[in-house]
Amino acid sequence: MALSEFDLIRRFFAEATIRRPDTALGIGDDCALLRCAAGMELAITADTMVAGVHFLPDVDPESLGHKCLAVNLSDLAAMGAEAAWFTLALTLPEADEAWLAAFARGLFSLGHRCGVQLVGGDTTRGPLAITIQAMGQVPEGQALCRSGAQPDDLIFVSGPLGTAGLGLKMRLGTIDHADPAAIAALERPEPRLALGQSLRGLASACIDISDGLAGDLAHVLAASGVGAILHYDHLPLSECVTEYIEETGDFALPLTAGDDYELCFTVPLHRRDEADMVLGKCGLRGAAIGQCETAQGLRINQRGHPLALEAPGYEHFSRA
Amino acid sequence: MALSEFDLIRRFFAEATIRRPDTALGIGDDCALLRCAAGMELAITADTMVAGVHFLPDVDPESLGHKCLAVNLSDLAAMGAEAAWFTLALTLPEADEAWLAAFARGLFSLGHRCGVQLVGGDTTRGPLAITIQAMGQVPEGQALCRSGAQPDDLIFVSGPLGTAGLGLKMRLGTIDHADPAAIAALERPEPRLALGQSLRGLASACIDISDGLAGDLAHVLAASGVGAILHYDHLPLSECVTEYIEETGDFALPLTAGDDYELCFTVPLHRRDEADMVLGKCGLRGAAIGQCETAQGLRINQRGHPLALEAPGYEHFSRA
Repeated sequence: MALSEFDLIRRFFAEATIRRPDTALGIGDDCALLRCAAGMELAITADTMVAGVHFLPDVDPESLGHKCLAVNLSDLAAMGAEAAWFTLALTLPEADEAWLAAFARGLFSLGHRCGVQLVGGDTTRGPLAITIQAMGQVPEGQALCRSGAQPDDLIFVSGPLGTAGLGLKMRLGTIDHADPAAIAALERPEPRLALGQSLRGLASACIDISDGLAGDLAHVLAASGVGAILHYDHLPLSECVTEYIEETGDFALPLTAGDDYELCFTVPLHRRDEADMVLGKCGLRGAAIGQCETAQGLRINQRGHPLALEAPGYEHFSRA
Repeated sequence: MALSEFDLIRRFFAEATIRRPDTALGIGDDCALLRCAAGMELAITADTMVAGVHFLPDVDPESLGHKCLAVNLSDLAAMGAEAAWFTLALTLPEADEAWLAAFARGLFSLGHRCGVQLVGGDTTRGPLAITIQAMGQVPEGQALCRSGAQPDDLIFVSGPLGTAGLGLKMRLGTIDHADPAAIAALERPEPRLALGQSLRGLASACIDISDGLAGDLAHVLAASGVGAILHYDHLPLSECVTEYIEETGDFALPLTAGDDYELCFTVPLHRRDEADMVLGKCGLRGAAIGQCETAQGLRINQRGHPLALEAPGYEHFSRA
């Protein structure tokens, strides 16, 4: 193989990233050096995606590059942070130039758009896996945490649920046609950064929906010490998901399927209009889907009847 | 398998870490929130270790936990930074409680000693691999970079070279006896954090020796635009390495073997005594081993004769 590790990093990654003025030193030394702004806290998140576990080994590398960064930026969005930097730990079975070029294209296309600079990382040989750590900044004390929801707060989601889950069924061949909207939701999720920042000072709690609404909302409820009622009929659904549920009766999909990367947030009841306005400004088809309650636990109501759910959310090791 | 992902994280990692007062929010939300001190830059590094590539699959998990963190802290040391936080992305084929307990023991034993807090990460199922990102702080403009070496600067290393490389030969069975010092150098490298911080304002350039002295020093020379002469006979060697070279004639070991994690740094000629004093204060058996020159390239001198080297340093993809 002709490409050395250093050539590889330089060609596809170090030279392709944007440069931020608050980066004192980027790729190329033992560490990168970043200047955090005064009065801001640094928000940090890390996510690993493993071939065969989080994506199909033959996935389009450009989509994979997009998604690996998107899922991390989604965590920054959920805290109300501005995205700033990321590191990339890339483990590859071989240095395939075409694959790397496409992966980098997907990665940096999103990265440039969101203003994040690649500042370091590692390339290693091994089974295909990608760990990205993303860093952003949020004004001190203004981050959106999971723990701030109060009884009576309204529960919102920022967009349709279950679309990515439907896309996964299509990719796995469980469903024999492929809807472009569902595939796009699965492979090119859009981190809701602008929304997250607009929710600072408005949302009482926030989380991104990576493992399914029911499971992720349960984290908010547990951290906040409240319960909730959800109105199934208020869930925003994309056309393809509505059709799929009508055909199959699989009503649980929008509640339990992962990978949507919409935000789920709570807002004091009297500020509902502001939340609707923020969603509209961000061009999002979000909706109020329920309300927090003093009684612990999550209750779901469908056409006036309670709905029982089995799977509480995706967990890697409990499914062995 | 009984352990859920959340139980796993909580039991072995979230509850075991130290708490720093400058951590606004640790593990348990979409992001951690860190408070960087005024006048400091944030130093960031990430390293991945893959089973079968960077360590033997049957390695003692306690040693592995130590080493994964140590190699990252070594990068912070090389910048002169104080260690503060790290994230852990752990990919495991199965949730083996005994393995995890031992791994966490090695990780946190070093982490506590160095004052670093685990603030986030990810646990995923897949082929065993660990990515750690370590973060530290260094006063603005005082980081030790690779690019500052000047002609005539003396070149130092912080301790014996080739010991870890010899330990690897023992672990691989290339050598049929095991020397505890060599195994310890390989499996429990000690990040030179105190030294790195003491070198601020004294060293003109610094790097940690992860891929072998010759290759890593070459990075410093290239970044600084200088060449150098090394005196082979001045290299600090441990007893077992001296014996090994006498027996085998493999003189290249201390120049090319990786994994020593000593620092290699340059110091203005007239400040030699200060460097010696700093090494002594840190209890290290370091030494001046050469000098920077205007003429580009790395020359090695052994008993008055030039020495030729083949391998310039470890690169993952060039060895395919």
